[in-house]
Amino acid sequence: MTLDPRGDLVALFRAIVDIESVSGNERELADQIEQVLRPCGHLSVLRDGDTVIARTDSGRAERIVIAGHLDTVPLAGNLPSWVEGDLVYGRGTCDMKGGVAVMLAAAVALETPSSDLTWIFYDHEEVESAANSLTRIAATRPELLAADFAVLMEPTSARVEGGCQGTLRFTVTTTGRAAHSARAWTGHNAIHDAVDVLARLRDHQPEQPVVDGLRYHEGLNAVGIEGGIAGNVIPDRCTISVNYRFAPHRSVEQAQDYCRQVLDGYQLSFTDAAAGARPGLDRPAAAAFLAAVGGEPSAKFGWTDVARFSALGVPAVNFGPGNPEKAHADDEFCPVGDLFACRDAVLRWLG
Amino acid sequence: MTLDPRGDLVALFRAIVDIESVSGNERELADQIEQVLRPCGHLSVLRDGDTVIARTDSGRAERIVIAGHLDTVPLAGNLPSWVEGDLVYGRGTCDMKGGVAVMLAAAVALETPSSDLTWIFYDHEEVESAANSLTRIAATRPELLAADFAVLMEPTSARVEGGCQGTLRFTVTTTGRAAHSARAWTGHNAIHDAVDVLARLRDHQPEQPVVDGLRYHEGLNAVGIEGGIAGNVIPDRCTISVNYRFAPHRSVEQAQDYCRQVLDGYQLSFTDAAAGARPGLDRPAAAAFLAAVGGEPSAKFGWTDVARFSALGVPAVNFGPGNPEKAHADDEFCPVGDLFACRDAVLRWLG
Repeated sequence: MTLDPRGDLVALFRAIVDIESVSGNERELADQIEQVLRPCGHLSVLRDGDTVIARTDSGRAERIVIAGHLDTVPLAGNLPSWVEGDLVYGRGTCDMKGGVAVMLAAAVALETPSSDLTWIFYDHEEVESAANSLTRIAATRPELLAADFAVLMEPTSARVEGGCQGTLRFTVTTTGRAAHSARAWTGHNAIHDAVDVLARLRDHQPEQPVVDGLRYHEGLNAVGIEGGIAGNVIPDRCTISVNYRFAPHRSVEQAQDYCRQVLDGYQLSFTDAAAGARPGLDRPAAAAFLAAVGGEPSAKFGWTDVARFSALGVPAVNFGPGNPEKAHADDEFCPVGDLFACRDAVLRWLG
Repeated sequence: MTLDPRGDLVALFRAIVDIESVSGNERELADQIEQVLRPCGHLSVLRDGDTVIARTDSGRAERIVIAGHLDTVPLAGNLPSWVEGDLVYGRGTCDMKGGVAVMLAAAVALETPSSDLTWIFYDHEEVESAANSLTRIAATRPELLAADFAVLMEPTSARVEGGCQGTLRFTVTTTGRAAHSARAWTGHNAIHDAVDVLARLRDHQPEQPVVDGLRYHEGLNAVGIEGGIAGNVIPDRCTISVNYRFAPHRSVEQAQDYCRQVLDGYQLSFTDAAAGARPGLDRPAAAAFLAAVGGEPSAKFGWTDVARFSALGVPAVNFGPGNPEKAHADDEFCPVGDLFACRDAVLRWLG
């Protein structure tokens, strides 16, 4: 199977989908992408692990990063790809090989782009952050990620989704006193005490803040609960795991303070946090992009690697083919119209 | 080590404690008890697995069963036994080798009892009901358990505890709709829905019914809770495990109906149930026992094998040395005064 970046876009897309690249198995796809890009005279190509970076260096005033990950979540009997009407089904069709196909076609086609471009095809996005190759590259070669603006071609149904919400996780543990359940009154039931914590979470009204013109939608939810010792013992502990998705006007610290207010009186043990990213659509570099793409930008709710660029001072947006609600679904698919819409927008913007 | 049933009661007790007999390992202790009882001309001795049954057959008007189990819960570095003041410590001291020692001494001493006696030393009480040798004997040789009255020498601090409470377990599962936690509003959080179930359990006032003159104390408690799929997913299921301890005026079916009323609107999945036992202290056979033992009888809260006798139509009480709150505790102990009090009461009653 050879990738033809100048031929039919749907054929290129399906060829990319059909090269299985579950996280950790990106090599074959990275090799083929490298083989396509190496011969292009307008690109200098770097290989770092299974990440392929292709750059133009024409001395333009601005540099734009366009990035997408090569890996997918595990298969669910959904490869090779298949077509139903205008939809291409299969693992990775939504998240995010449509973006990879558009990037590959545009990287080859844009021989004299209006801005200098850095195309980043990277590995290990669908796993823990430490394994993500952008973590390594940001630490070892941050100059490769430097830019005035960045587009992540994650699925957005070919609309601009700005920034991303942050996320943090914590646990709250209620404690009681164990006792034989035949003499329950000699103990104190920690699971019953969870009522107040869960009621505050249930009754909490998530905020919908407007940040840089985009409306976000927060969420504060119990995502796990565990308690109990045995069927004849009054439980002395109950642990509730909570996930807070917060709009990017809050820092991680501010988000933690917010949770402490909602659950005032309880000890919160924070286990995990990732800052959000402001949409950055007010930056000059974004203006030409928005004009080329058209439509109303909206807020990105899920956390994406735009936050990494934001942390490096690079405003970043999400823009790619595929409905984000279908990411990771066993029946994930991509409408072929999204592929053309995204490719045409990128060529219009940078051509 | 040889058991001397006619010598010092505390020495006999400690010798029995020091023969380790965690459930499944009762043979050595059963062997030694059998060796003590076989030579007694007033007893006919049966061995069934590791259960030893010794009976008088003097044609008395009434037959009394006195029963105790040989096994203990697992060790916790608490053997061999040791003495601190008037307390003997070690695994089994409370539950229930004090009762076994009293039974062995009394079985040998009571050569011409006022009622015919059936002494039952049985195995596998501290494990699942199906393994309990009383389950087997009730099924295969129920005539061996027949009596007008039964005493289980489970720890009661040498007081009469009548009957026992029943117990049942069930689960309640709330269901929602899974969604990515970054778009929580597209799902429905099943853990948040547990609030209502837990609040009803927390706010429930357990009844304290008086049955046959004894006050019981019920309890309806969550003993386990589990929910959650992943840290970034709105949970679609939450399962609460509940234990209801009910006074013996209710049947299992009535107890189930009671739980259905408390949690009206929810589906209850019953997983386990054991009927309670009425105290039966109004039976004529109990009168002489109560007179000999003295003190005020009280209700037994925990489930014990008295319920098996009750189910066979034999009224039964708990009466034995050791504080029931210390059963299974790593620091379980028995006051030596309880041993003498119980032995003397049994001899007074049946001598």
